Amino acid sequence: MGSVWGNNFKLTIFGESHGGGIGCVLDGFPAGVAYDEEFILSEMDRRAPGKNRQSTARREKDLPKVLSGVFEGKTTGTPISCVIENTDTRSGDYRNLIDHPRPGHADYTGRIRFHGCNDPRGGGHFSGRLTAPLVFAGAMCKLFLRSKGMAVGSHIASIGQIMDTPFDDVCIPAEQLETLRTQQYPIINPRAQQAMLDQIDQAREALDSLGGIIECAVIGVPAGLGSPMLCPAEGRISSLLFAVPAVKGVEFGAGFSISAMHGSEANDRMILEDGVVKTETNNNGGILGGITSGMPIVVRAAIKPTPSISREQMTLNLADGKVEPLVIKGRHDPCIVTRAAPVVEAAVAVAMTDLYLEAYGYAQD
Amino acid sequence: MGSVWGNNFKLTIFGESHGGGIGCVLDGFPAGVAYDEEFILSEMDRRAPGKNRQSTARREKDLPKVLSGVFEGKTTGTPISCVIENTDTRSGDYRNLIDHPRPGHADYTGRIRFHGCNDPRGGGHFSGRLTAPLVFAGAMCKLFLRSKGMAVGSHIASIGQIMDTPFDDVCIPAEQLETLRTQQYPIINPRAQQAMLDQIDQAREALDSLGGIIECAVIGVPAGLGSPMLCPAEGRISSLLFAVPAVKGVEFGAGFSISAMHGSEANDRMILEDGVVKTETNNNGGILGGITSGMPIVVRAAIKPTPSISREQMTLNLADGKVEPLVIKGRHDPCIVTRAAPVVEAAVAVAMTDLYLEAYGYAQD
Amino acid sequence: MGSVWGNNFKLTIFGESHGGGIGCVLDGFPAGVAYDEEFILSEMDRRAPGKNRQSTARREKDLPKVLSGVFEGKTTGTPISCVIENTDTRSGDYRNLIDHPRPGHADYTGRIRFHGCNDPRGGGHFSGRLTAPLVFAGAMCKLFLRSKGMAVGSHIASIGQIMDTPFDDVCIPAEQLETLRTQQYPIINPRAQQAMLDQIDQAREALDSLGGIIECAVIGVPAGLGSPMLCPAEGRISSLLFAVPAVKGVEFGAGFSISAMHGSEANDRMILEDGVVKTETNNNGGILGGITSGMPIVVRAAIKPTPSISREQMTLNLADGKVEPLVIKGRHDPCIVTRAAPVVEAAVAVAMTDLYLEAYGYAQD
Amino acid sequence: MGSVWGNNFKLTIFGESHGGGIGCVLDGFPAGVAYDEEFILSEMDRRAPGKNRQSTARREKDLPKVLSGVFEGKTTGTPISCVIENTDTRSGDYRNLIDHPRPGHADYTGRIRFHGCNDPRGGGHFSGRLTAPLVFAGAMCKLFLRSKGMAVGSHIASIGQIMDTPFDDVCIPAEQLETLRTQQYPIINPRAQQAMLDQIDQAREALDSLGGIIECAVIGVPAGLGSPMLCPAEGRISSLLFAVPAVKGVEFGAGFSISAMHGSEANDRMILEDGVVKTETNNNGGILGGITSGMPIVVRAAIKPTPSISREQMTLNLADGKVEPLVIKGRHDPCIVTRAAPVVEAAVAVAMTDLYLEAYGYAQD
Repeated sequence: MGSVWGNNFKLTIFGESHGGGIGCVLDGFPAGVAYDEEFILSEMDRRAPGKNRQSTARREKDLPKVLSGVFEGKTTGTPISCVIENTDTRSGDYRNLIDHPRPGHADYTGRIRFHGCNDPRGGGHFSGRLTAPLVFAGAMCKLFLRSKGMAVGSHIASIGQIMDTPFDDVCIPAEQLETLRTQQYPIINPRAQQAMLDQIDQAREALDSLGGIIECAVIGVPAGLGSPMLCPAEGRISSLLFAVPAVKGVEFGAGFSISAMHGSEANDRMILEDGVVKTETNNNGGILGGITSGMPIVVRAAIKPTPSISREQMTLNLADGKVEPLVIKGRHDPCIVTRAAPVVEAAVAVAMTDLYLEAYGYAQD
Repeated sequence: MGSVWGNNFKLTIFGESHGGGIGCVLDGFPAGVAYDEEFILSEMDRRAPGKNRQSTARREKDLPKVLSGVFEGKTTGTPISCVIENTDTRSGDYRNLIDHPRPGHADYTGRIRFHGCNDPRGGGHFSGRLTAPLVFAGAMCKLFLRSKGMAVGSHIASIGQIMDTPFDDVCIPAEQLETLRTQQYPIINPRAQQAMLDQIDQAREALDSLGGIIECAVIGVPAGLGSPMLCPAEGRISSLLFAVPAVKGVEFGAGFSISAMHGSEANDRMILEDGVVKTETNNNGGILGGITSGMPIVVRAAIKPTPSISREQMTLNLADGKVEPLVIKGRHDPCIVTRAAPVVEAAVAVAMTDLYLEAYGYAQD
Repeated sequence: MGSVWGNNFKLTIFGESHGGGIGCVLDGFPAGVAYDEEFILSEMDRRAPGKNRQSTARREKDLPKVLSGVFEGKTTGTPISCVIENTDTRSGDYRNLIDHPRPGHADYTGRIRFHGCNDPRGGGHFSGRLTAPLVFAGAMCKLFLRSKGMAVGSHIASIGQIMDTPFDDVCIPAEQLETLRTQQYPIINPRAQQAMLDQIDQAREALDSLGGIIECAVIGVPAGLGSPMLCPAEGRISSLLFAVPAVKGVEFGAGFSISAMHGSEANDRMILEDGVVKTETNNNGGILGGITSGMPIVVRAAIKPTPSISREQMTLNLADGKVEPLVIKGRHDPCIVTRAAPVVEAAVAVAMTDLYLEAYGYAQD
Repeated sequence: MGSVWGNNFKLTIFGESHGGGIGCVLDGFPAGVAYDEEFILSEMDRRAPGKNRQSTARREKDLPKVLSGVFEGKTTGTPISCVIENTDTRSGDYRNLIDHPRPGHADYTGRIRFHGCNDPRGGGHFSGRLTAPLVFAGAMCKLFLRSKGMAVGSHIASIGQIMDTPFDDVCIPAEQLETLRTQQYPIINPRAQQAMLDQIDQAREALDSLGGIIECAVIGVPAGLGSPMLCPAEGRISSLLFAVPAVKGVEFGAGFSISAMHGSEANDRMILEDGVVKTETNNNGGILGGITSGMPIVVRAAIKPTPSISREQMTLNLADGKVEPLVIKGRHDPCIVTRAAPVVEAAVAVAMTDLYLEAYGYAQD
């Protein structure tokens, strides 16, 4: 299995890139959450391909059609289902790839996993297009989390070698997250943004691609979500972050850097601020012993460079075992990181909703 | 919930550091796996505190008592339960900590999560001692995986700033993993080992602690384990790696470094070697699209420095809201990374068993 | 939660009676199963309201639109999603019911459960219409089970006081199940059928309704499916049978009658027949210790009379606490048992698929 | 898998009849529940074999040793683990049974399921003895439910053909449940009790056995627990009731009888009593649309006669395929129904706790 996630509510995602449609179902989503269509469409837009995000044409293309679970402007508590049509498909481009698995893609592993039966067109169920329903689900979860005083946001921490200014991990204002959400590129430092865009242009010209890192934060988190031992908050969140295509690493707080610190430096000192327990640093990323501390949750996801590059590559012909040149046709982003922020946020928002519902149940007012 | 893990078999871990005992239950573990007690005890020994690992005394202390699930030298297929006694407990040391949460520990978050009812003695259910039953479970899973041609091993990739030679990720011999397993310190490069031990000594003398990174590999993995979308192999493995206390980051293959590569560099080129599909590099760590490729799985876990340090620290007195000095008494390792390798391997072995059983079921011969 | 089921694959059902559409997702369904559309439509037809089952109009109405998971005539192994439009809805009929919960319906409990937010039109998510996607899922599972040599079938064991001839529980020919499947009414004894139809007519004339019992069988079941203790095959199957609306009792083999037997009578004597272990009787309904024995699984589900009756009833006005007369408008079957057989079979087929996949995994040939 | 149950907390049961011990783990059990040892031991006593229930000797035999999860008289919220020693084992009796599966037992199905590796001594993991940890878990859950105003109780509704007076299903006083709990035989009607005991004596003398029915009730249930569609309260409860060995049927409210009613008779009319919504009848057993209504939950479980009878039976010799006489040695109850009430109650109490936690979460006060 693979397309259902959650312990305390369930997200199911379905669809193939060039099939009859893609979509998702949210089962166990709380009742009574106001359905803010404008917000949801703006989230869908952040992920959508192409630049001119205000165009109506774009919106129609990735317009989520909600079939159930919303009634008179509010969630019903019964399954929310959403279907997004596949419109602009050019399946002809991909036929050649069945025997020529693209390097860095799931063409070969998918073939083994599904006995050669999976839909290869446009990557099928493996397509990055499947992140559209994830973003829809994340938008719904953000609406729920907002009703509980939480907000999820992110920025592009790096593209290639270029790094953005990191979050101030002990104090991330809601306004900053909202500003990043509405920027064309969610980057804190404008100079970093220019350097990143330059790098992407160079990669495109070189028929190559680039990866990067998304840094995501959740603020307003109540202390006490998550569990020790086998199901810590980090494990719950990471299990869904690795579901974002191309993510190969996940770290919380100081993450891999904490491994090079001394304890006296890494330990976050506790203080009381306006009657609230906080820490002066946040090297643990808002989670201690698998349980949220009330500090911002800070998590970074490493995204590999788009494996589909325009440059000729060598690959194996599975039919005859020979290594042969391959040119991947079709339209491919030289850097998906610029569109990855809402997807990473969606994964985190879904995981946070699951953690919240574990603590408070569906009957909480 | 938090102490049960698994979709296709279930691991349950229970116990408190100073309670009546700790242990685990493995439900759905395959029938007919030979119970190799010597191997299991050797794994327990790798994790056990203290240096003189050959001593009988040590073995008795962490001796797993198997109550069920093993009959006439083989697993029965019914739940394997194991209890480990708590013997050497000195609860007096920890009483003072209830109102003085230790920085970097779960004292505060545990108190919120469990409404102040959890056992605080020795860290209770949060104690690193709970990794003992995890190592037992991992040892059982290694026996199963071995019967399917797989092996799990690891080395200390770094302690503080000192790095070991990394695995050759396209070819990791079983002998290397076994050698590392039986070394006092699982480090590939002897010079790195000396530098690491020196750093630990310095940290101890400074009443401080150090963190590090464990690099773990699984070899002999069949292609086709795991799933695309929401339950990828990386997500399954990481969800359990974050259950290892002090892990704050997890990465596969080139991990965070892949985010700074170009696609032309990151893409692993496929080849045929002795009739087997392989890749010339392994930047994806043996997993593509959430599914194993047959290449070695390579995963790294970042471990924070032991939060219990001997040096005086400031912390919050939860009773009166004042920041006060705290001296943590008791015996604490200045660097748990030297004992973390078998624990990380255990988490990976348990996750691999779950993935294998999803693919082949309990009825596979 | 409530609309996701399964351990080894997942069925999700969504939709409201008068909403934008209903449907289901099957995640983890095996790859390579031939998609037999004619069979699926014939199953949908068995459940569909109205009598004239051959009409094209009817087929169009409940036509399942498969959006994903089927490619070139076979299942892909990725999620199968199916949407069924709601066409013939007359929401005006039900507006009055919000403050006047219908006796025997979930109007009141649904209101409490979902904080008054659930869609009340036509019963919303509680509507019997939601059994249509269950029948679709069951039809898919029947195709899979058929490829493994299994068949699921049923008959109306009773309506009101009138009983059909029971299955010969030690030998149920596949032909009998197929004959029942294609009959207008799945009843073995023609005289019982006439008496049942007479009773239904009388109930309709009395503005009342009738219940009944469906007896369902699975043949060709391999021995060894299911588990002892907490997840026995009976428990798995019953957990889904109670999801069929109006089911209030489930029994296996001799069921409640076995409680009045002596052990010497109830114990099924084992024999060898053509090299296969069988039993001379089948009082245990093909399941012993929670595990299938290879004998036919025989299970009965008790279905209550349609709670929507045309006759005036008294109910509580939730707005003012007064007991008031209620007349339920709209079209209601006086006996849903005649349409329940494919739904019960679907629940059993889904559960059997889950049990099979637990044993053999997705990688079985 | 089979020995882990629960969505919102997890019960794990382990052990074999003649192994090193049996026990259970409760993960996710709420923190802060007072541990009432006397109550727990009294529940264990109700299930324990033998008659002289007040004897200290008996108590020591099935004494649950709690290893974790209870601290200073209250539950900690971390896993509660309990081990019960196996003391009085006579494995010699059962050796003969490996090739001679006992009719009505799981000997054959267990052999297939576990590839012949399961422990056959005393029924191994299939033994009725495994209900002891279930009763422990149920007792813990009853303590929790009590703290929320709920009570679970039962009586022997029938043994063989003799029936007890049923519960008054619209009003079951807590005192009645407590009285039944402390009676030697939980039977309402003393004359029925005498007739039942007579029947058991006759069965014993005839070297035979008898089955029966347990009727169980839960009172004080809040409205709104459970879910529509695939995970109704009936399905959750029944999935665990079928885990009680020998249960072959489960029905709620009027159960199978409701199938012979008219709708006008079956529909429970709603009324307001002291400001609380109730129904004048309770044919739906306190559950409508899969959701609790606030009325008592009434459920009956049909228990087959003990398959181990002293009388000679024919069975198959699996070694040579011949049908041979078998005499089952050892001590066997001619009717386990007299000890089944606390086990059925335990299953229901565990299921109710799961349903409650789904609604209210672990963070509810």
